[in-house]
Amino acid sequence: MRRVFEEDLNDLHIHFFQMGKAVNEAIYKSVKAFVNHDKALAKEVIAGDIAINKDEADLENKCFELIALQQPVTTDLRKIVTIMKASSDLERMGDHAVSIAKSTIRVKGNKRDYEIEAQIAEMSEKVKIMVQDVLQAYVASDVTKAKKVALKDIDVDHDFKKIYKACIRQMKNDPEIVLGATDYMLVAGFIERIGDYVTNISEWIIYLDTGKMAELNTHNKNDSFPKA
Amino acid sequence: MRRVFEEDLNDLHIHFFQMGKAVNEAIYKSVKAFVNHDKALAKEVIAGDIAINKDEADLENKCFELIALQQPVTTDLRKIVTIMKASSDLERMGDHAVSIAKSTIRVKGNKRDYEIEAQIAEMSEKVKIMVQDVLQAYVASDVTKAKKVALKDIDVDHDFKKIYKACIRQMKNDPEIVLGATDYMLVAGFIERIGDYVTNISEWIIYLDTGKMAELNTHNKNDSFPKA
Repeated sequence: MRRVFEEDLNDLHIHFFQMGKAVNEAIYKSVKAFVNHDKALAKEVIAGDIAINKDEADLENKCFELIALQQPVTTDLRKIVTIMKASSDLERMGDHAVSIAKSTIRVKGNKRDYEIEAQIAEMSEKVKIMVQDVLQAYVASDVTKAKKVALKDIDVDHDFKKIYKACIRQMKNDPEIVLGATDYMLVAGFIERIGDYVTNISEWIIYLDTGKMAELNTHNKNDSFPKA
Repeated sequence: MRRVFEEDLNDLHIHFFQMGKAVNEAIYKSVKAFVNHDKALAKEVIAGDIAINKDEADLENKCFELIALQQPVTTDLRKIVTIMKASSDLERMGDHAVSIAKSTIRVKGNKRDYEIEAQIAEMSEKVKIMVQDVLQAYVASDVTKAKKVALKDIDVDHDFKKIYKACIRQMKNDPEIVLGATDYMLVAGFIERIGDYVTNISEWIIYLDTGKMAELNTHNKNDSFPKA
């Protein structure tokens, strides 16, 4: 019985990790599509979201069954609850990738600003590494790494502020850039929020270890908008 | 034992409902503060978010304890899991209220557009009623009402598109409105996302009844941005 449970729990971990990798790929592709105005790739991201949503539903069902059948307590229950809650964070990260992809499809010959686009690409590269690192921290139950990853979110928020200010500046100077810059701002906002979700997952990794929810970057979350 | 469990479960329901009411008040106050440029009220919303976050953590702990101690199955487990997951939706709605409040504090003598502000107030009034209705549907386990509430989100998304387009138009015409209109767009975006979370809660109410997650407004979620 116990061995079957261990195996089921391990399957759950692997499934969560794979969902995380799929989400990271969606984020990466969506930003690549946005920067390169690649509508085909953007459509791929949108189509792929169905599988990510299914992952969340499947994980939810498996968690539910495992609790009902095995009636786990303490550490085991905590592991299952973590997957149940953190899979929502992954799913929402996937939703943001879809939003970025939809921005790409919306863009129709808008006037571009290559400098801001480069900043967005750079910001998303950081977030991509954060997602990779937090998944590794999850697999290795590495609390130190989880905390380190969460700290990187401060840098991402800083990038967002920079992009936001650049967009405001450009829009004030040039009415023709308004439409494009609005999308830059929105996309940067989505990437910034993906960083927040990574912080949430870091918090879950700490919860797994300690049984307590620690709020990381409290001063920082929800406070990413610059006082322009 | 069973009676104690029933009481605990009932306490959980009441706590969830009260958290929902607190979140709705935060949303209402944040939009009121934004439209009236009332920084004191905005600060109240920001300060109040600590209690909302604590509600989520408390609910999480209580759910965990109840599962570990009572080892519920089927319907009872489903009720607990729903509260565990849906409390995250409420908490995020609270976060969006904070974001709206922070926009209010950011505003410093920006040029205003009273027509767009009125549209935002109207949109938020609809969302406020949606939140009230979904909480009532939750308490009454009213699936029909839950579905009706979710349908209203289509109207809210429509409002968002209208506001978004008005902002783009104004920004193109008048560089002085850029800063203010950016905030209008962001705030309308936050309200729109609150509507999405209401839809999530409707889905949870259906799950409570059927044991299955139904995706409501699939065509609609994540698709609120207009093809400007």
